[in-house]
Amino acid sequence: MTKPYKFESAGEIMDTGYITVPAHFTVDNTIAYFRKNAKNKENLHYLYVTDDNSRLCGVLSVRELLLAKKEERIDGVMTKDVTFAPSDMDQEELAKIFDRDDLLSVPVINEQFQMIGVVHVDDILDVMTDETTEDFLKMAPVSPIGESLKDASAVLLYRKRITWLVLLVFMNVFSGAGIAHFEDVIENNIALVFFLPLLVDSGGNAGSQAATLMIRSMALGDVKIKDWMKLFTKEISISFLLGITMAAAVSIVGFMRGGAEIAIVVALTMTIVVMVGSLIGMSLPFIFNKLKLDPATASAPLITSIADIVGVLIYFSIAAWYLGL
Amino acid sequence: MTKPYKFESAGEIMDTGYITVPAHFTVDNTIAYFRKNAKNKENLHYLYVTDDNSRLCGVLSVRELLLAKKEERIDGVMTKDVTFAPSDMDQEELAKIFDRDDLLSVPVINEQFQMIGVVHVDDILDVMTDETTEDFLKMAPVSPIGESLKDASAVLLYRKRITWLVLLVFMNVFSGAGIAHFEDVIENNIALVFFLPLLVDSGGNAGSQAATLMIRSMALGDVKIKDWMKLFTKEISISFLLGITMAAAVSIVGFMRGGAEIAIVVALTMTIVVMVGSLIGMSLPFIFNKLKLDPATASAPLITSIADIVGVLIYFSIAAWYLGL
Repeated sequence: MTKPYKFESAGEIMDTGYITVPAHFTVDNTIAYFRKNAKNKENLHYLYVTDDNSRLCGVLSVRELLLAKKEERIDGVMTKDVTFAPSDMDQEELAKIFDRDDLLSVPVINEQFQMIGVVHVDDILDVMTDETTEDFLKMAPVSPIGESLKDASAVLLYRKRITWLVLLVFMNVFSGAGIAHFEDVIENNIALVFFLPLLVDSGGNAGSQAATLMIRSMALGDVKIKDWMKLFTKEISISFLLGITMAAAVSIVGFMRGGAEIAIVVALTMTIVVMVGSLIGMSLPFIFNKLKLDPATASAPLITSIADIVGVLIYFSIAAWYLGL
Repeated sequence: MTKPYKFESAGEIMDTGYITVPAHFTVDNTIAYFRKNAKNKENLHYLYVTDDNSRLCGVLSVRELLLAKKEERIDGVMTKDVTFAPSDMDQEELAKIFDRDDLLSVPVINEQFQMIGVVHVDDILDVMTDETTEDFLKMAPVSPIGESLKDASAVLLYRKRITWLVLLVFMNVFSGAGIAHFEDVIENNIALVFFLPLLVDSGGNAGSQAATLMIRSMALGDVKIKDWMKLFTKEISISFLLGITMAAAVSIVGFMRGGAEIAIVVALTMTIVVMVGSLIGMSLPFIFNKLKLDPATASAPLITSIADIVGVLIYFSIAAWYLGL
């Protein structure tokens, strides 16, 4: 059997057990029709009203049907402004509509505006759970396992985790190359290595904060791609404030371990690394979105790896310049 | 006005607009009663049936009411096995019940089993969105902002992000101290610094994968605290497989940059660091849960920082031992 609908679309998850009535029916007709046809259909919260060409033209809740006067015509009591979904709408989009409009069911229509099915809110709860799990795993990043963690075999879990881990190893080789490039700077002032994890991790942490906020807001539809410029400008001030606070904190440790010169190098690096990390972190989800990739793929470890490379280069460049090494 | 219900509990989010009928009513009585009382109440999907002491004893959907014979008594058509929630049930627990039983509404009861309200599925959709956002931000970690990212001021965003960043700086001082402790090892073999970001990040990445899988499974109720031992044993084999694969990948780079001896040190360290990182990552959410803290607080940057410290110590210990430095 072929599945004619797109993966994770409204058409794929819709139910075809629904009831439609013509607009000219009376409430009394409709109740009789409902009593005859509703027996073996689950989840009937609404009756949909269609015209002579099966096109959707109204909706009526079972409650409204029960409350209406028996002699009234359906087109007199129905709601004409129906929220609907085209069959190729992505299920995540559809979940947002349910959330926004507080609906129990949304009718699905084909290109001719004819009703072909209905999606219920309990299916949307399942969709939300699945999509959240997917997004969570991307943050790690792990491929979705598709079964219970308890039941999944060690080999399956190995396969779902190894690809990203090996990719990230090769990303980190670049940080190593950065360090190798500055080998003489490090040899001349070994105290610099003390601050290496602290500085590069801070850039990564600030970056993954910025990315997470952005990914979540994009998933909820709060932030659109056109907002990038405005948010980028705001991130400059935020990350500057974050950077100088962290520089102040770290310069105390820097002074204690390496004296005034090291403290200045470390504080300067911290400010710049946090700013650069944050700006990369907030921009990557937009770039991924622009490239038609899922923004959530701009996951924390990816940003950490990029921030590491940039951090190493900034740190030892500043050290070489300031300390005149 | 005081709020008598617990924060984020069923009692706090419930709606008090519902309809109850006595069990001795006929279907006809009930329809008449419903028509009189349902006008200005939203979200009426079910009628709840109560006994003489207002205790919940049955439920009937509006659809079932419409389909029943008019002369039947309500206790003949109602469902006696009602899913309900005590008023102090946490909203996240409640969301799981909605998801499991595909319900539109769940009645809320007090200690005397009397019905006091009803929670609707559209409120649960909001709960799920909020809880997911909270959990996401913990992964970063950022405190919940409580408003749109676009509208939040730079100063607010600064405050939500700075605490964690500064805390993580002080965690990373320990990695620095580890490095300082091995200063002579590094001075004698500066090539070791090349592999530092690669090795410690791999431990952190493997650890945050393991933690994310665990946090998500615990949130979905798939993994309980009693499963720790079984999953720990499984994680030993998984992380061993991950570790040797990554050791193989990195030993090529190790050989090219530092010769056979460095390759062996790096491969050995990689295997152990990935295993230790994974086991810390999968255990921390359990420990947090046991301490009555949210497992999601065992976030990626926290695990990365811990893995950094452990990784530095393992790496230079192995190097000092194997290279006889």
